[in-house]
Amino acid sequence: MIHPKIPLAQTVVQLCKLKNIKHIVISPGSRNAPLTLGFTNDDFFNCYSIVDERCAAFFALGIAQQIHEPVAVLCTSGSALLNYYPAVSEAFYSDIPLVVLSADRPKHLIGIGDGQTINQKDVFENHIIYSANLKLDLKDENRIPEREELPIFKSIENRLERFLGLQQGIQSYNEDELNKALELSRFKKGPVHVNIPFDEPLYETVDTLSVNPKVQTIDLKHQKIDQDELKDCIDEWYVATRKMILVGVLPPNQIEQQWLDELANDDSVLVFTETTSNLHHPNFFPSIDKIIAPLDSESFEALQPDILVTLGGLVVSKKIKAFLRTYKPKHHWHIDAKKANDTFFCLDKHIEVTPNDFFSQFLPKISHVTKSNYFNIWTLVKQQRHKKHLAYVKQIAFSDFKAFSILLKSLPNATILQLGNSSAVRYAQLFNLNPTLDVFCNRGTSGIDGSTSTAIGCAVANTKQTTLITGDLSFFYDSNALWNNYIPKNFRIILINNQGGGIFRILPGHKNTENFDYFFETKHELTAKQLCEMFQFEYTTAHDEEQLETSLKTFYKKSKHPRLLEVFTPRTINDEVLLDYFNVIK
Amino acid sequence: MIHPKIPLAQTVVQLCKLKNIKHIVISPGSRNAPLTLGFTNDDFFNCYSIVDERCAAFFALGIAQQIHEPVAVLCTSGSALLNYYPAVSEAFYSDIPLVVLSADRPKHLIGIGDGQTINQKDVFENHIIYSANLKLDLKDENRIPEREELPIFKSIENRLERFLGLQQGIQSYNEDELNKALELSRFKKGPVHVNIPFDEPLYETVDTLSVNPKVQTIDLKHQKIDQDELKDCIDEWYVATRKMILVGVLPPNQIEQQWLDELANDDSVLVFTETTSNLHHPNFFPSIDKIIAPLDSESFEALQPDILVTLGGLVVSKKIKAFLRTYKPKHHWHIDAKKANDTFFCLDKHIEVTPNDFFSQFLPKISHVTKSNYFNIWTLVKQQRHKKHLAYVKQIAFSDFKAFSILLKSLPNATILQLGNSSAVRYAQLFNLNPTLDVFCNRGTSGIDGSTSTAIGCAVANTKQTTLITGDLSFFYDSNALWNNYIPKNFRIILINNQGGGIFRILPGHKNTENFDYFFETKHELTAKQLCEMFQFEYTTAHDEEQLETSLKTFYKKSKHPRLLEVFTPRTINDEVLLDYFNVIK
Repeated sequence: MIHPKIPLAQTVVQLCKLKNIKHIVISPGSRNAPLTLGFTNDDFFNCYSIVDERCAAFFALGIAQQIHEPVAVLCTSGSALLNYYPAVSEAFYSDIPLVVLSADRPKHLIGIGDGQTINQKDVFENHIIYSANLKLDLKDENRIPEREELPIFKSIENRLERFLGLQQGIQSYNEDELNKALELSRFKKGPVHVNIPFDEPLYETVDTLSVNPKVQTIDLKHQKIDQDELKDCIDEWYVATRKMILVGVLPPNQIEQQWLDELANDDSVLVFTETTSNLHHPNFFPSIDKIIAPLDSESFEALQPDILVTLGGLVVSKKIKAFLRTYKPKHHWHIDAKKANDTFFCLDKHIEVTPNDFFSQFLPKISHVTKSNYFNIWTLVKQQRHKKHLAYVKQIAFSDFKAFSILLKSLPNATILQLGNSSAVRYAQLFNLNPTLDVFCNRGTSGIDGSTSTAIGCAVANTKQTTLITGDLSFFYDSNALWNNYIPKNFRIILINNQGGGIFRILPGHKNTENFDYFFETKHELTAKQLCEMFQFEYTTAHDEEQLETSLKTFYKKSKHPRLLEVFTPRTINDEVLLDYFNVIK
Repeated sequence: MIHPKIPLAQTVVQLCKLKNIKHIVISPGSRNAPLTLGFTNDDFFNCYSIVDERCAAFFALGIAQQIHEPVAVLCTSGSALLNYYPAVSEAFYSDIPLVVLSADRPKHLIGIGDGQTINQKDVFENHIIYSANLKLDLKDENRIPEREELPIFKSIENRLERFLGLQQGIQSYNEDELNKALELSRFKKGPVHVNIPFDEPLYETVDTLSVNPKVQTIDLKHQKIDQDELKDCIDEWYVATRKMILVGVLPPNQIEQQWLDELANDDSVLVFTETTSNLHHPNFFPSIDKIIAPLDSESFEALQPDILVTLGGLVVSKKIKAFLRTYKPKHHWHIDAKKANDTFFCLDKHIEVTPNDFFSQFLPKISHVTKSNYFNIWTLVKQQRHKKHLAYVKQIAFSDFKAFSILLKSLPNATILQLGNSSAVRYAQLFNLNPTLDVFCNRGTSGIDGSTSTAIGCAVANTKQTTLITGDLSFFYDSNALWNNYIPKNFRIILINNQGGGIFRILPGHKNTENFDYFFETKHELTAKQLCEMFQFEYTTAHDEEQLETSLKTFYKKSKHPRLLEVFTPRTINDEVLLDYFNVIK
C-alpha cells in the first residue's frame, strides 16, 4: 500500500483509521498533500473532494449529523482553514463531531512572509472543543531546529542519540494530542482542530509504515443521576399541577416510546415539541407558535407551568422564549448529558444524563395521580386552533404560507426533511408534520451559510431520500454546495423564492421604503435556473397552487439527476398572510 | 434626518462619519438594523448591500486597497461574522484598513441558547490589529443589569443618579474604544473589529441625535530614521559591490521617480521587481523567475548580493526565496514603516520608515562610485533570456502560457489589472508588463477565496477600467462575487479555464493518476456560461489563439454590461509548456 513518507502524516492517517473515522472531506492544496496521499490511497476511507472549504465543512457536518460519528475535513495552509469557521461554530453549538485537520508550514516558516501562511494555532478558540497543535517531525540532524530545541543540539557528539530521543518525544506528543482530540470530538460531540505542520518534500511516498501509533481512550465516566437530585425532582413533580416539557432539536429515535406514551397520558403534563425535535404523539403539542401567538396575559397565566422540563438543543420558537421569560416556571430542569442553557433565566437543575436515562429512572418512580385540567384545557385550545388553521389555509392566496401547507404534506413517508434558516424552519413549525419524517435544521448558529451543503452531506450519508426546503437568500448564499460530485440522484431541493429575505418583512421594520427593500429584504430577481443547468439538476418551477400540486406529483420519483423545484411566491403578500394567520386562529 | 434611537448606534455612525469612513458594505440582518438605519439614512455614506459576507468583506477590501482609507463592513450577529474571516486575514497580512462592525446580542443573552448567537468577542484574535468590544447602553433602570454592574443597584435611592453616571461611563468607554479602533485601522493599515451589542427594540428611529461623540486622535509619532543606523547603511553600502533591491507588493506611485532613476543607474545595483510591485524602469529586472530559474550553483554565487534591500509586501517568486535562503546576503535591510519579515533568515535591519522617506535621506548621501560589473553582467543575462522568451512564445502550442502572452499585451493603457491566485499571478510574473498598468493581487494570504470580490471592489472605487485575470478554481470558488449590484459596466473578467487546479500539475506530485486528477487537480467540466447569464455578464469564449485575438479586439470597449471572456486551455499540455520554458531560456 502507498503511504506518505512523512511519519507525522502516517500517524494522523493511522490514528483516524484506528478511531474509525471513515469519511474524509478533502479540499485541494499542496501543504496537505502528505495527508491527501495517505487517506486517498487507503480503501478504508471514503474520501470526498470539495473545493470550497466553506461548503466542504458543512457537507462534512451533514454527514456527521446523520452518523453521530466524527467526520474529518482536510485543507491546506492559509485562509483555506478560515473558511471552515462557519461550520465549526455550527458544529460547536449543535454538538456535532467534526474533526478539522489543517496542514501548516513548519513553525520557522510562519510569520516570515511565506505565501499561504497565517497564524493557524488555536484559530477557532472561541468555538472549539479542543485544539491540538502537533509538532513537526525531526527530518534529519541538519534541519533547522525548532527554537525550543536549540540548546540540546549544542553538544555534537551525542547529537544522533538526542535526535532520536527528541523524535520519539515529538512522536509521542503528537500521538497523545491526536488521540485526545479525536476522542473528545467523539465523546463530547463537537468540533476539534488538529493543526499539522509539514516540511517539504510533501509528495514522497513509501510502501511501508514507519510508525505504529497506539489508540488511547479517555476515561470518561458514565454519568449517573445524583440520587438526591432525583428525589428533589420527584418531590417537585408530585406537588406540581402544571408541567411543561419543551423539546428543542433532537435527533430521531432518542427516547423510548414507553416514556413518551407515559408523558403523553398525564393530565398535568403538556409536551411542546418543536419541528426539529423529531418526537411525535397525538397528545403532544407541536406547532408551538400556533398555541402561543394569539394568547393574552390571562391565558399566559393559565399556561404558566410550575415545572418546565427542557430537552434537546436550541429552541426555534421566539414566542415561547418570550412567554417563559415573562411567565417564569417555579422550576426549570434541563436534561442533557453535556450542557444546559439558562434560556429562561430560571434554570435550577441541570440533570447531566440523556433524556432517556433520566426518564427511565424517573418515570417508574412516579404515579400519575396529580389532579389537573392542564392537559385538557390546552388540548381544547389546540383543537380549536387546528380547525381555524385548516379553514384559514383553504381560503388564502398563493403565498409562502400556502406553499408550505402543500409542500409539507407532499413529502414521502420515511424520508428526511432538511430545513433552511430561517423562514423555512419557522413556517414548518406552524404545521403538523408527517411523523415518519426525520427533520433537521442548522439551529446551532441559525446561519444561512451552509444549509444546502449540510443537506447534501445528509443525503450522502443516508439511504433514505433527503429533501431540502430552503429560502432564496439561504440557497444563493450556499450555491457552491452544488459544486459537489456526490449528490445522490434522489436528492431534492424545494426553493421558496420570494425574491429576498421575506422574513424581514415580518419584523417591525420600515417596510416598503426603498432602504428597507434594499438593505433589509435585499430584493433580487435571481432564479435557480442557471445553477441547475450548471450543476445538472433537473429544474421545475411553480408560480401558483395548481402548478405546485402538479409538479409535486412526480417530483420525488426516481430520476436521472437530482431535482430542484423553484416555487415563486409573491414578495409583498407573504408577510400579510402570515401576520393575518395569527389574528385569525385566535 | 432619521437616526436610530439607540444611542450606541448613533455613536458608531457619527464617529465613522467624523473619521471620514465613507464606504459601508452592509449584509442583511436584524440585529444590525440600528446601524443599517443610521448609515443608509445619511447621504454622507456610500452604502452597499451584499448578502454573502465572505464576498462583502473582500469587496470592501478591494475598495480599501484602492483608496488607502478604512472601509467598513457591517453584519448581524452569529456565524455571519465568521464569513468575514478570510478577508480579515488577507487585510491583516496585506496591510489594508478594514473596519469590521458586528452587531451582537447583549451579554446576558449570549450563551443561553438564543438563535444566531455565538461568542463574537475577540473572535479574530489571531489576525487583527485591534478588537473593541463595546458595551450595551443602559436602557432604563429596569433593564437586566450587566453582571459587573449589579452591586451598584443595591441602593435604591440614588439609583437614577448612578444610572446616569453609569450610562455616561459606558458612553465614554465606547467612544474611546471606537476612536482607538478606527484610528488604528487607519494608521496601522489593517483590520480592526468592533463588536456592538444591541437590545430590542432594534428598528426605532428618532429625528435628532442624543449623542455628540468626540473624535480623538492617537498620538502616533512620525517615525524617523535613526541617524546611527543610517550611517551604518551608508558604510555598508560603500564597501558592497553587489546590491540587490527586491520589491514585493507595493501600491502604485509610492516612490519618487528620481530615486528609482538613481538606483536604476548604479552599476552595483540590481533592482528585482515583482509584477505586484508597480515599479518600472528599463534597467530594472522584472520577471524574476526568468532570471533565477535556469541558474546553476556557479551562477547563483555570481548573483549572491552583499546587501539585500527589500521593500513592499510579500514576494510571489518562490525561486528567489529559495535562492536567497541558500545564498544569503551579508546584510538584509527591510524598509517599511510598519513591519519586517525575516523571509531569508538573515534580516539585520528593519528601517521603520517608508521606502520614499528612506531613499530621500539615504541616496543624497551616496555617490555611485562603487566599481562593479554586477548590473552589466545580469543585464546581458536578462537580454538573452528575453530573446529566448520571445522565440519560445512564438512556437508553443495554445496553452496557459500562450494565452497569458496574448492577454497581458492586450490590456489597455492606464487601466488596472487584478490577478487571481495563484497560477494567474505566477504566469504574469514571467512577462514584461505594460508599465502604465496598476497591478494588484491578494498576496497577504494568497487565497483563492476572494479574488473576484476584491477586483469588483477595486472597480467600484476607481474610474480606471479594471480587468481581473483569474483561474477557474479561484473564479468558481468566489462565484457569489457576481451577486453584486455595483459592478461597473466596464469591468472585465478573463477566466483561464484549464478545467482544474492546473498549478498542481507543475508541482512534484503524481500526475495522471486518478487520485491526482481528483484530489489535487480537482478536475471539472464547469464553465462560466450559466453564471454570466444569471448575473448579466456578456459572455465570450476562446479555444485557440485566433479566437482569443479576435475576442480581444473589442473586449475592453464600451458595453452595456460587464464582460467575461472564458479562455479554454488544454489541461494536460499547460504544465509541459511551462516546465519546458525554464529549460529553453537557459
